[in-house]
Amino acid sequence: MRTLKVALLGGGNVGAQVARILIEDGDALAARTGARLQLIGIAVRNVNAGRDVELPQELFTTDAETLVKDADLVIELMGGIEPARTLILSALRNGACVVTGNKALLAQDGPTLYEEADRAGVQLSYEAAVAGAIPILRLIRDSLAGDRITRVLGIVNGTTNFILDQMDSTGAQFADALAEAQRLGYAEADPTADVEGHDAAAKAAILASLSFHTRFALENVHCEGISSVSAADIAAAKDAGFVIKLLAIAEKLSDADSDGGAGVSVRVHPTLLPREHPLAAVRGAFNAVFIEAENAGELMFYGQGAGGTPTASAVLGDLVSAARRLVLGGPGRTETTTGHVPALPIDAAITSYYIGLDVADQPGVLARIAQLFAEHGVSIEIMRQTIHRDAESNVESAELRIVTHRASEAALAATVEAVKGLDVINSVTSVLRVEGV
Amino acid sequence: MRTLKVALLGGGNVGAQVARILIEDGDALAARTGARLQLIGIAVRNVNAGRDVELPQELFTTDAETLVKDADLVIELMGGIEPARTLILSALRNGACVVTGNKALLAQDGPTLYEEADRAGVQLSYEAAVAGAIPILRLIRDSLAGDRITRVLGIVNGTTNFILDQMDSTGAQFADALAEAQRLGYAEADPTADVEGHDAAAKAAILASLSFHTRFALENVHCEGISSVSAADIAAAKDAGFVIKLLAIAEKLSDADSDGGAGVSVRVHPTLLPREHPLAAVRGAFNAVFIEAENAGELMFYGQGAGGTPTASAVLGDLVSAARRLVLGGPGRTETTTGHVPALPIDAAITSYYIGLDVADQPGVLARIAQLFAEHGVSIEIMRQTIHRDAESNVESAELRIVTHRASEAALAATVEAVKGLDVINSVTSVLRVEGV
Repeated sequence: MRTLKVALLGGGNVGAQVARILIEDGDALAARTGARLQLIGIAVRNVNAGRDVELPQELFTTDAETLVKDADLVIELMGGIEPARTLILSALRNGACVVTGNKALLAQDGPTLYEEADRAGVQLSYEAAVAGAIPILRLIRDSLAGDRITRVLGIVNGTTNFILDQMDSTGAQFADALAEAQRLGYAEADPTADVEGHDAAAKAAILASLSFHTRFALENVHCEGISSVSAADIAAAKDAGFVIKLLAIAEKLSDADSDGGAGVSVRVHPTLLPREHPLAAVRGAFNAVFIEAENAGELMFYGQGAGGTPTASAVLGDLVSAARRLVLGGPGRTETTTGHVPALPIDAAITSYYIGLDVADQPGVLARIAQLFAEHGVSIEIMRQTIHRDAESNVESAELRIVTHRASEAALAATVEAVKGLDVINSVTSVLRVEGV
Repeated sequence: MRTLKVALLGGGNVGAQVARILIEDGDALAARTGARLQLIGIAVRNVNAGRDVELPQELFTTDAETLVKDADLVIELMGGIEPARTLILSALRNGACVVTGNKALLAQDGPTLYEEADRAGVQLSYEAAVAGAIPILRLIRDSLAGDRITRVLGIVNGTTNFILDQMDSTGAQFADALAEAQRLGYAEADPTADVEGHDAAAKAAILASLSFHTRFALENVHCEGISSVSAADIAAAKDAGFVIKLLAIAEKLSDADSDGGAGVSVRVHPTLLPREHPLAAVRGAFNAVFIEAENAGELMFYGQGAGGTPTASAVLGDLVSAARRLVLGGPGRTETTTGHVPALPIDAAITSYYIGLDVADQPGVLARIAQLFAEHGVSIEIMRQTIHRDAESNVESAELRIVTHRASEAALAATVEAVKGLDVINSVTSVLRVEGV
């Protein structure tokens, strides 16, 4: 039986689990691959750092460049842009297949890597970069190859899903839920990349690229995080039958849909979903991706989005697939980029909206607001008024909640501006996008 | 660009949609495949039968044998054992790749087909045979190739899920929910194959075979349908926080788990699931497959399990994949059967149980029943007694609901027999298996 040499770059949480499985499950992997996968080394910054998993000390090295030169298969789990980028390019040029989980690098400089892999005729796989253990990329690329995806909605960041789920189930404020997530190890000390949506945005770019056969970069993704979502927003959403999730959204719009012409809207923002939507049931730090395709209809894929062992499962799936191809022959897998659909700016996005208004409790207010929406071409689906009476002052105030039909961001923004100018409006308490209605 | 000739066997609901997509989406499919997919004919029993989809009349033929001889790719959607079996074998021998959705044939005679495909070095794919649009087979075979699956729980029959969901949400009896399903076209006039679990059992055999790298046949699957599930069972389950689903289950047991030794338990039966389990949220005629793997942890895949267009999406995914391989070269995909794990009889299955008992309302009853369970080695997790007083007769009766820890079927059966012999037991109202606790 042939032996394939595997170089591992990075000995962190995921890397250590990958190494452990390669060593422990060697026989089973060989049976499924048709080749023995020999781990020849693990490149790390500090060979003496403490690790959770016990691994043979002689495997560790700080010389990643030399390690890469000798490998048939390279697994890159260092993260960050450099030296990961240079090492991957060098491996591809040497004819090695590369498996990576580096979403930041792919979102920033994916095309350079894909082109180098094409030129070298080798495989570059990155299942672990999006939604951890869920093999979502292979699904989109292979299983839905005979279909047309129209929309992708993903919960692709476990940290923010944990925080929003905590806020939803306990009524906590954002800051308290974040502190709890940090205490439990679901959020990092500096949680910016997660809570501001940057991590989800990189994944949105990758999902959109594969779904629509076009290369989208991070700069094509409109990104809003969850730090401004308040306990009051969550409570109002709950009361109206919704749950708030941070969604990565990629949606194809035709000329007829959009003022901005045909294209793909790629965006990350807090989104209201009806409680009966399959994504609404995704709790804690789990991930899920909901896909709408012309023929397949609605599909959803659910699993663990992070963690050493689950993410290692995705890395190993890619590794076995690449190794099988080396053993059996056959060409590398080319990314199909036959679409060339433009990315649309956020103004051209089409979605429903939830708007909360604090209004004067006097006759005719509803009619004036409804008239204003109609003038801006935004159609109202649900309008609900609740009257509150302050027990002490005996002053009545009214809360108005509106859910619109699908409208463009531009039309909605203009409507909200106009509503603010009405003398009967005390304040606009929230404006949130809605999907799945 | 090369042209590949596609023969379609069967012009029913799914077949007609496959033909429509091949004709309408020809350019997009060619771009993704690297070859033009030319539909050369549709073999049907009656070329003049009325069809929902308008297709060129000249494509229809009754001569399936001649059609198959001329094709590079054969799609078999006739169903049934013969002539499907002979036609598929003939196509494989001619060197054509075959895509089929014929679960009955695969469950009955899969090994003959797989071996013929291996011999001819061509691809035999059957994604559409299990869970319609959900690409579950590719996931198990490719994406989880570097992991070890420990358990598969599937809602793989939309008809029974619709009926159970109706019973759960409306309180209807089985017969009324079945009639409703028939009225809406979710159940056939003769619903036996669905409601007695035979359809799910064929799919369970396929899922188990791929998950555990061993060939399981229909005779290895223990099968119970839903016709004996009563409205009272559903109500009691609901009251205890459970929902009843018809599950296809394939589970690996080690020597330590099972009296029957190591092996795989493959079975289909009504099963209680906690309402918070991801499968519990699968409503109506949708399908979902929940997988537990050593590294990936919990995964779930959800989508439409039937219907012409969704199932056509799975067929086209297989077709594009087979065509790509014909264009790019590379070997056929061999089913890995490296496991050779034995199938276990139902007596060796290990699961939790829900037992409903109508008992005399007198002191010491609970203790006697608990003692009896302990003597049989069945550990009780939850025991709840509810006292009812009949308003007219003023007679009190007690209802006892027990959820056990995991135990073998054999131990449970012996326990239930012994419980029936107690003088304080009026009747055993239900015995149902429980998963996901």
